[in-house]
Amino acid sequence: MNKGFFMNDYGEGAHPSVMQRLMETNLEHTCGYGLDEYSLRAQALIREKCAQSQAQVHMMTGGTSANMIALSAFMRPYEAVIAAQGGHINVHETGAVEGSGHKVLVADSLDGKVLPESVRAVCAAHPDEHMVHPRVLYISQSTEVGTVYTLEELRALRQVCDDCGLILYVDGARLGSALVACGMTLAQLASVADCFYIGGTKNGLLFGEAMVIVNPALQKDFRYMIKNRGGMMAKGRLCGLMFLTAFEHDGYFAWAAHANAMADRIRRAMDRRGLPHLQRTTTNQIFPVLTPEQDAALSERFAYERWGVLEDGRIAVRFVTSWATTEAEADALAQALEAL
Amino acid sequence: MNKGFFMNDYGEGAHPSVMQRLMETNLEHTCGYGLDEYSLRAQALIREKCAQSQAQVHMMTGGTSANMIALSAFMRPYEAVIAAQGGHINVHETGAVEGSGHKVLVADSLDGKVLPESVRAVCAAHPDEHMVHPRVLYISQSTEVGTVYTLEELRALRQVCDDCGLILYVDGARLGSALVACGMTLAQLASVADCFYIGGTKNGLLFGEAMVIVNPALQKDFRYMIKNRGGMMAKGRLCGLMFLTAFEHDGYFAWAAHANAMADRIRRAMDRRGLPHLQRTTTNQIFPVLTPEQDAALSERFAYERWGVLEDGRIAVRFVTSWATTEAEADALAQALEAL
Amino acid sequence: MNKGFFMNDYGEGAHPSVMQRLMETNLEHTCGYGLDEYSLRAQALIREKCAQSQAQVHMMTGGTSANMIALSAFMRPYEAVIAAQGGHINVHETGAVEGSGHKVLVADSLDGKVLPESVRAVCAAHPDEHMVHPRVLYISQSTEVGTVYTLEELRALRQVCDDCGLILYVDGARLGSALVACGMTLAQLASVADCFYIGGTKNGLLFGEAMVIVNPALQKDFRYMIKNRGGMMAKGRLCGLMFLTAFEHDGYFAWAAHANAMADRIRRAMDRRGLPHLQRTTTNQIFPVLTPEQDAALSERFAYERWGVLEDGRIAVRFVTSWATTEAEADALAQALEAL
Amino acid sequence: MNKGFFMNDYGEGAHPSVMQRLMETNLEHTCGYGLDEYSLRAQALIREKCAQSQAQVHMMTGGTSANMIALSAFMRPYEAVIAAQGGHINVHETGAVEGSGHKVLVADSLDGKVLPESVRAVCAAHPDEHMVHPRVLYISQSTEVGTVYTLEELRALRQVCDDCGLILYVDGARLGSALVACGMTLAQLASVADCFYIGGTKNGLLFGEAMVIVNPALQKDFRYMIKNRGGMMAKGRLCGLMFLTAFEHDGYFAWAAHANAMADRIRRAMDRRGLPHLQRTTTNQIFPVLTPEQDAALSERFAYERWGVLEDGRIAVRFVTSWATTEAEADALAQALEAL
Repeated sequence: MNKGFFMNDYGEGAHPSVMQRLMETNLEHTCGYGLDEYSLRAQALIREKCAQSQAQVHMMTGGTSANMIALSAFMRPYEAVIAAQGGHINVHETGAVEGSGHKVLVADSLDGKVLPESVRAVCAAHPDEHMVHPRVLYISQSTEVGTVYTLEELRALRQVCDDCGLILYVDGARLGSALVACGMTLAQLASVADCFYIGGTKNGLLFGEAMVIVNPALQKDFRYMIKNRGGMMAKGRLCGLMFLTAFEHDGYFAWAAHANAMADRIRRAMDRRGLPHLQRTTTNQIFPVLTPEQDAALSERFAYERWGVLEDGRIAVRFVTSWATTEAEADALAQALEAL
Repeated sequence: MNKGFFMNDYGEGAHPSVMQRLMETNLEHTCGYGLDEYSLRAQALIREKCAQSQAQVHMMTGGTSANMIALSAFMRPYEAVIAAQGGHINVHETGAVEGSGHKVLVADSLDGKVLPESVRAVCAAHPDEHMVHPRVLYISQSTEVGTVYTLEELRALRQVCDDCGLILYVDGARLGSALVACGMTLAQLASVADCFYIGGTKNGLLFGEAMVIVNPALQKDFRYMIKNRGGMMAKGRLCGLMFLTAFEHDGYFAWAAHANAMADRIRRAMDRRGLPHLQRTTTNQIFPVLTPEQDAALSERFAYERWGVLEDGRIAVRFVTSWATTEAEADALAQALEAL
Repeated sequence: MNKGFFMNDYGEGAHPSVMQRLMETNLEHTCGYGLDEYSLRAQALIREKCAQSQAQVHMMTGGTSANMIALSAFMRPYEAVIAAQGGHINVHETGAVEGSGHKVLVADSLDGKVLPESVRAVCAAHPDEHMVHPRVLYISQSTEVGTVYTLEELRALRQVCDDCGLILYVDGARLGSALVACGMTLAQLASVADCFYIGGTKNGLLFGEAMVIVNPALQKDFRYMIKNRGGMMAKGRLCGLMFLTAFEHDGYFAWAAHANAMADRIRRAMDRRGLPHLQRTTTNQIFPVLTPEQDAALSERFAYERWGVLEDGRIAVRFVTSWATTEAEADALAQALEAL
Repeated sequence: MNKGFFMNDYGEGAHPSVMQRLMETNLEHTCGYGLDEYSLRAQALIREKCAQSQAQVHMMTGGTSANMIALSAFMRPYEAVIAAQGGHINVHETGAVEGSGHKVLVADSLDGKVLPESVRAVCAAHPDEHMVHPRVLYISQSTEVGTVYTLEELRALRQVCDDCGLILYVDGARLGSALVACGMTLAQLASVADCFYIGGTKNGLLFGEAMVIVNPALQKDFRYMIKNRGGMMAKGRLCGLMFLTAFEHDGYFAWAAHANAMADRIRRAMDRRGLPHLQRTTTNQIFPVLTPEQDAALSERFAYERWGVLEDGRIAVRFVTSWATTEAEADALAQALEAL
């Protein structure tokens, strides 16, 4: 018997509607490198959803590649990007940002969210040419610990960026789940961010992230940057077609809403059982704290990640839901949690 | 009416057997980043085909990314790679190799193939620390102009590399067509190269190239390099599964053989008509030289690339065949060529 | 009237014996790029002082350049260097290390000195290819806050490095003052470090640092690295000659001892007056904490740097002595401090 | 007996007036990093000589460092610099430009001078994002083979740069000799170039090059770039003071004129003797072609560099004069040449 799968959201395949579209169009001939009709239509549709007719949209192959290419496109060699200590670019990208020549500066965060005053402090602490010059503020929506910035919080960060001459860049690897969780639209996000990407890998696509460059000052020659950093796919239509499928009928948001709903079932069961959270969330990641016994019992029937061991010996774990999590799977986990 | 498609080999989708396999396994859960069972099985199978039980095999997302990651893994900052003037890394990768810090040195070539004596001359011209130090010889099999190195030619280059302390790296974006064209096996290639990649994008896969690192001295921490340069895919199983499908029943070679056979039909028609080649080839790329009138007539019914204009006003064009080229399409082009 | 100069130790010229030697040899012809007789003799002499007959010695133009070149010579692209939060490479080199592609990881420190257990923790927190791989431990002797590692402390760090597979690299911008302060010899330092540099700029030379690579595994092609990173001086003999002058009669240590002695006079006056230290030191940097009134009074007669403002409004300042600080200057400052 | 020294122009020390000034000011205290009074005065004076009141002037430590820093400041990652095949950045800087991420593209040259039409051809051959984007034209004045661009030739290149969107950058390692040789002023050079450096190392200074950034669009944050690439000297006043000395009484030009005059004596002797030139020059480098016997005889009494061996067995050599070459030395060589 297979275990219920709550390990992550990238261990899934693509949504069936995406696969069907890939099958249907498989024998078509298109031009390469993302200049085909499907890519153009996907870009136009995303611009429309963002209510940004002048935005550029580029299809990227993955999150680390997308972050590294965008950040190195936006900065000169001595410029640096500010992120939370646990930010993906600071910890989990094997130094890709530094590999393209740029320092990652750390700002304090609360609940995984960068604090505006700390961003100001980092800028104030870098006044002259003996130090790097802060140039980009990197945040994730949702964050590494599954929390979400409200629109008010994003506007506060926007203000800091305006005051300090920073570009606001949003890593949207799990953007679908985040937007649905807090009722934010792409247009609202696009109204505060200079650039962000819409994550496809973790929400229904085989792979691919759509980079939206809102700020015209950052758009120049971006395709050169993609190619220079090894991120341009010959069969670019694949990403175009998959994003087109995801946004034509707003499947992207429906899939994310499903993932969140499955997570809600699990959260409610935890609340009923009184299980603590390492970090309370509203998105598709849940971080319960279990006793070793609870963990042992649960791990026999469910696949999930052990996140860390607390000082008192308890174990923080992570459950992740996705578009593919079935109600039966979610309910099975919910019941098992209640029965702990 | 659609034109017959001879524009390139990456404007195609994936071979139906590959698509079917992707569909069948779409809802399976696997671990990420290329550590899944499909990837492991594909790697083992490729090692077996190469008769190199100690080789490492890594799945890469595309050619430019694969070249840049391998070359920057193998070289220290002051080291350089030698290539033909028209080598893909020298012209068509937007400076990706230089972007990772390394100079591309140019060796003379004939029929697109690097000349051994010229490689020696380049090395001799770089004797001390005021110049870069040549470290890798980069060649493509087939070359940019569709020609193929014989095993004897590869052995001569291997000898030069041994004499000069060079690593022999083979770009195999079109390796299938090349090996079939000259009757070379993967094991023979692996016996002379330190590292090469097996191109999937241009021969039946949605995307992906399989990097084979034969030389154990070059294998250390290659997965770190992939991740550091943005080339590691979360759903790594996709590449694994596609390469597994391609090699389980040797489809990879059958698809390439088909592409070559379709090209042969076209070449034979050219010969019958007496049409000249810019560069005679035996692989899936053909480079006829046409008069403007011939080009005008042909381009109404067939899609192909204009390669360049000769001094006498004639036009060199490129036809590319693939696993997806039908006999009817090839014959239509062949007949049209004869009728010019 | 000029103010007594305690601003820093690089605002001074060269020791008169160094200037005299430069004058005497100015019209000699030598070969360039550090291959001249003076450079060779300086290298041999430093090897002898370090009791490391197999060590390489290279003349570098400055501290940031020296650090960046050595660190990028020792690391592969995905590898990282560990340093204290306030380490020079982490804060005051404008991202030069990241500019060469490498992340700086931060270890906890006490009194400016990296804690061995924290280095182990950093290594333990970077277990796989999704994160950078720690490869070098960077420390400064003396540290940024003027403290000194004892030989015992260095040996503890050496043990950590051996356990964790780290290279121990010592930034010796103020090595003279440090060694004199704790009675450590160059040979003792060389017995624990894989590589270190002997700072000339801040102790009697016009410029220049002597990089000593003790570990043979790190020596390969270092001159290529120097040239590739822009650090090779055409008139390399200048550094050679200056270091030869500094070490032929151990002037280097005498000059540092003088600087320390002048600092001791100031420290003793502070103790008599009961003035607190931000960080107690034994080297040529002193960090008194002053009231705004004391600072105002003192700054009329003496030039020094304001280091920071404490929460209670008091001001931490820095006095730096050097080979050029006269007894009269030191005594004048000492008296002024006692009279506050 | 010492041989007459014609090996190069960087094997010399500094002009006596420079050394005297360094001695006189050695015990002064100044602020560091090139912000001192001497540096400011030197910068102002150079701006005045260039008749460019808005130009920035920065003191650099050496030629390779200066080239690499300027070029990487001016280009985005996918941009490339065009140079002659034998250009210093293309051959003799150990890949420093590529090490900072940029490709060097080669344009055809005649007598060492880049041909305008070839620059246009290189630009035309790089039309899209699959190739690097040419951004800077790099030339040397004088060239690697001692020739000089006339003002007319520079204006033709300026026109090409304007037409193609290129920055015109001039490497002035031997600028003094070049300007004197063709009667060009700094102001004339500054009227056509976006940026150039005035070489000090090879004309009377211990070290140092003065970077003049004429184009305001290229000036932003240049000091950050210098520091980030390891080129900022703590005792920045050294360069400032040396350049101030060189330009206060136009010594820089007088020294170069002397070097050229000494070269002229040698050239005249060659003409009287009928000795061929590999490349005829008017600057301080001379490239005679000798028989092996002539070379053997000459090398007993004079130190010079063997430049290459011709196909017929004759030897091209290089004589270099400098501010330090005495009339007696030049005449001795002239007589020896006539007596061959």
